[in-house]
Amino acid sequence: MTKVTRQVAVCGPRECTRQEAEWARAVGELLARAGITVLCGGGAGVMAAVATGAAEVGGLVIGVRPDTDRDAVCPGLSAVLFTNMGEARNAILVESADAVIVIGGSWGTLSEVALARRRGGIPVVSLGGWQIRDANGRPVAATVGAADPADAVRRALDGIGSAPAEPT
Amino acid sequence: MTKVTRQVAVCGPRECTRQEAEWARAVGELLARAGITVLCGGGAGVMAAVATGAAEVGGLVIGVRPDTDRDAVCPGLSAVLFTNMGEARNAILVESADAVIVIGGSWGTLSEVALARRRGGIPVVSLGGWQIRDANGRPVAATVGAADPADAVRRALDGIGSAPAEPT
Amino acid sequence: MTKVTRQVAVCGPRECTRQEAEWARAVGELLARAGITVLCGGGAGVMAAVATGAAEVGGLVIGVRPDTDRDAVCPGLSAVLFTNMGEARNAILVESADAVIVIGGSWGTLSEVALARRRGGIPVVSLGGWQIRDANGRPVAATVGAADPADAVRRALDGIGSAPAEPT
Amino acid sequence: MTKVTRQVAVCGPRECTRQEAEWARAVGELLARAGITVLCGGGAGVMAAVATGAAEVGGLVIGVRPDTDRDAVCPGLSAVLFTNMGEARNAILVESADAVIVIGGSWGTLSEVALARRRGGIPVVSLGGWQIRDANGRPVAATVGAADPADAVRRALDGIGSAPAEPT
Repeated sequence: MTKVTRQVAVCGPRECTRQEAEWARAVGELLARAGITVLCGGGAGVMAAVATGAAEVGGLVIGVRPDTDRDAVCPGLSAVLFTNMGEARNAILVESADAVIVIGGSWGTLSEVALARRRGGIPVVSLGGWQIRDANGRPVAATVGAADPADAVRRALDGIGSAPAEPT
Repeated sequence: MTKVTRQVAVCGPRECTRQEAEWARAVGELLARAGITVLCGGGAGVMAAVATGAAEVGGLVIGVRPDTDRDAVCPGLSAVLFTNMGEARNAILVESADAVIVIGGSWGTLSEVALARRRGGIPVVSLGGWQIRDANGRPVAATVGAADPADAVRRALDGIGSAPAEPT
Repeated sequence: MTKVTRQVAVCGPRECTRQEAEWARAVGELLARAGITVLCGGGAGVMAAVATGAAEVGGLVIGVRPDTDRDAVCPGLSAVLFTNMGEARNAILVESADAVIVIGGSWGTLSEVALARRRGGIPVVSLGGWQIRDANGRPVAATVGAADPADAVRRALDGIGSAPAEPT
Repeated sequence: MTKVTRQVAVCGPRECTRQEAEWARAVGELLARAGITVLCGGGAGVMAAVATGAAEVGGLVIGVRPDTDRDAVCPGLSAVLFTNMGEARNAILVESADAVIVIGGSWGTLSEVALARRRGGIPVVSLGGWQIRDANGRPVAATVGAADPADAVRRALDGIGSAPAEPT
């Protein structure tokens, strides 16, 4: 009976590319092998892929759903929370995570990046995610870019504890 | 990689009696031995006792916290969700459970009974919980009363699947 | 441009008796005449009646809905918040109010009483609401009982500011 | 006692520039003069400026707060909801609005743009807001750009009813 292990949220589109699904599966596997608990949205696309990757190596994966639909839950989850609060559940994912990894881009995923940066103090790493510019077209550093799944996991885990208020 | 196992929420006061803590610990152990995932509030009192009971026999226990305070989390949890939404998180516990067991009485616990009955369709079992009367003093059947921890767990698990809309 | 006026939440069943609807309409009117902003669930039954009562005398009434269904909103509301979070929205009503008046009994209404008492520090007045007993059958003082709408409004407004932590 | 009037959410940073505050004040005034109810976050910066602008011409302005701090509320609000759910309250603002106008950029504001686009079906207009690029650097059309406050209000109101699923 020790302390709760580190938790990393992995976020990404319901409708994702094959590459994003492969990345997500690899990220899930790498996190599980590192003894990290994976948090995800518990649905399709990137969410399902990361759950599969973690579950295949016996990892702990918690799905946090926007609704109460038992049939919309992806396989591989160790447990599911049915928040019944729509996309506001993205805030719960972000608040519960010691680090966030985003794979690919979508409006829901962007809200998770924004909420994670609004919270501050945790690493937000992206694989192929969207980028932000200010009103004058200058880049706004939203996430730590990663080259591949292993790099994403490494950057997320390295960032935990060092707690950078402003990842760049 | 199978379906998510059954989840039972165990609710009760932060400040509980020794008997309520013993009951909670036994309920947690019995649920875990039955292969059930335990959901709880992740704090003190009944929440901590049920987490301990489940953890001691290797069970899966998810804590759903009202805040984001990492230091207020009880030992024994497999994973923690920090909802940051105060007592509204009681609705998430109730929506996520296949059955609810309440141990003892408090305002937060009563809100969980009320939200579980508002949802309907799941067993709500109580060990020593509060009772409800209508405006004319007539009893309102809120929960299925249990005699001891084993009886509470049995009634909860028996009720899952039969999904009584109106437990009495 | 002054401070926000006092806000009183009026809670009660979607399916209410004729007397409860009459009480709710009178409570809405009396609150509005006293310059109080009325908060309610924005739906049927007691929620609709209190909105009508306040609106008929030009009062401000805010509906806080559990869903996003524009067609489920009762008439008479000055503005509507669509929380999309189910019964967890009851916590928002209670947190936003300087006093709570409950009319009649239901599981949703009981959750509002419980959440209001869990919060503490505000008057919780009832007209014909449910009563609570502990596990030994002893009454648990949940609300301040009122004899009629005028009495309920008077007790709610008298209680604001004096902020009783434990109404009896 | 008619239908609820149109509601427009105006979002922007707590810490804003002088120009953003002037824009927000003008947007609030223009919306109120058009008989629109203004929804905002009820705090500092753009939130306070839009409330002031609407209140000065007698408009209805509802503040939706992330916490329960009565002292953090800006002047000018007709009513305040204390959600106690942190930045997840941004989802309530967006779900409650018939159109969203963002002024300036911040992480919280970006989450509101993302949540509004995730919801879809409502105009999302920006004055000086952040821009989005995909992983390849191509622009992602997030909002309808406006030249000045009058243009922003006109674009928002024109968009209501025509309900564009994909503003560009």
